[in-house]
Amino acid sequence: MFISFEGTEGVGKSTLIASLNQSLSEKSAVVLTREPGGTPLAEQIRELLLTPKQEQMNPATELLLIYAARAQHLDQVIVPALSANKIVLCDRFVDASVAYQHGGRGMDKSQIDLLTDTFVAKMPDLTFWLDLPVEQGMQRAKNRGALDRFEQEKIEFFQRIQASYRQLAEQHPQRIIRLDASQSAKQLHQQALEIIEKFLGGKAVSEINPM
Amino acid sequence: MFISFEGTEGVGKSTLIASLNQSLSEKSAVVLTREPGGTPLAEQIRELLLTPKQEQMNPATELLLIYAARAQHLDQVIVPALSANKIVLCDRFVDASVAYQHGGRGMDKSQIDLLTDTFVAKMPDLTFWLDLPVEQGMQRAKNRGALDRFEQEKIEFFQRIQASYRQLAEQHPQRIIRLDASQSAKQLHQQALEIIEKFLGGKAVSEINPM
Ligand SMILES: Nc1ncnc2c1ncn2[C@@H]1O[C@H](COP(=O)(O)OP(=O)(O)OP(=O)(O)O)[C@@H](O)[C@H]1O
Ligand SMILES: Nc1ncnc2c1ncn2[C@@H]1O[C@H](COP(=O)(O)OP(=O)(O)OP(=O)(O)O)[C@@H](O)[C@H]1O
Ligand SMILES: [Mg+2]
Ligand SMILES: [Mg+2]
Repeated sequence: MFISFEGTEGVGKSTLIASLNQSLSEKSAVVLTREPGGTPLAEQIRELLLTPKQEQMNPATELLLIYAARAQHLDQVIVPALSANKIVLCDRFVDASVAYQHGGRGMDKSQIDLLTDTFVAKMPDLTFWLDLPVEQGMQRAKNRGALDRFEQEKIEFFQRIQASYRQLAEQHPQRIIRLDASQSAKQLHQQALEIIEKFLGGKAVSEINPM
Repeated sequence: MFISFEGTEGVGKSTLIASLNQSLSEKSAVVLTREPGGTPLAEQIRELLLTPKQEQMNPATELLLIYAARAQHLDQVIVPALSANKIVLCDRFVDASVAYQHGGRGMDKSQIDLLTDTFVAKMPDLTFWLDLPVEQGMQRAKNRGALDRFEQEKIEFFQRIQASYRQLAEQHPQRIIRLDASQSAKQLHQQALEIIEKFLGGKAVSEINPM
């Protein structure tokens, strides 16, 4: 089972993944990973993406770097883990590219979908979208030191991303489940765990989805 | 005018570009550049591509990194130089992706063409393919120190690349001109310069092309 976690900055993705990893690891082999990154080479690509630079990065360059990292991550980590029947918990995946590079940067969605169709062998079985007003996520995340190249963007950038995530959740109810991320970390954990257990018990995401 | 130079390792691309730069600079503004690379960020991507690694690089990752560097190079260097009416001399471009990633690595040509159609705003007006038997190029190039990630490949890899370049030259006589790279550097320079002058004088590449 392949689960991705999505949402704007500081909504609680990493916190939720860490606690789910603990619970799920009791019964199954779990691989906890993230994008961009997940392999040594893909983490080097992440560095290129996140480090603020003098040179303005072209949006197409950003998009292609993300898919380069993703191709490596799929090949080296995700596909082998799924073949070995492990549960993969992935911090951001394809939806983040639509939300950030289309919603945020204004790239055509069709260009992103084309890269996905061509280079992404495996889509998540289930995606949790942690929905929280942008300002609240930023408030939560603000004590984290120097801002990376994305975090330096204006609030409008993240609001466009948030709108894009909402649209994706509406368009893909058979895969994406919205979680109210204003709940406590404990409540979120409980809710996500129940959903995963229903899915593992054979229910389709669209049957579980409260949307 | 945008001119690219193609061919397998050590055929004399850099030598020819350097001498053409000298001649052409007398009358025009010339930008001499290369792929992958050509901007600080694109050169960082080049480093990722060329440095031998423990981790096996997926062919799709390699291809997408090259197009990421290319998008940056086009945006920051090639398109602005052409807009300013400069002559751009580029050491490798799109044909190298077909020859190396399709011919060499076995990626589908359609996947490469798709990236070109989507992300390459400007194709060369003229491409010189320096045709030389693979072994002779390697013989010429062999005194250059440690081998990069591509140079470590077997001879069959370069023979597939050579075959792919031949096919491209046959398919695109309106853009690609084959040069016999077994000539002396001086003869090659003369021949290439005459062709460029004919093109600048208004002739179409297919009229000039001896193929
Ligand atoms: N449900 C929650 N309620 C309140 N605070 C939370 C909750 N979940 C996480 N936090 C806190 O919010 C901050 C950001 O959480 P976390 O790092 O998990 O977010 P994130 O979505 O992974 O952020 P980023 O997008 O930057 O990686 C942390 O300080 C964390 O302890
Ligand atoms: N026409 C020629 N005849 C003989 N030797 C040549 C000729 N052109 C270049 N050389 C020599 O061959 C070697 C390789 O040339 P060069 O570096 O220009 O090739 P290249 O195609 O740029 O190689 P690479 O693909 O590795 O960048 C150099 O030592 C150069 O001096
Ligand atoms: Mg996080
Ligand atoms: Mg060279």
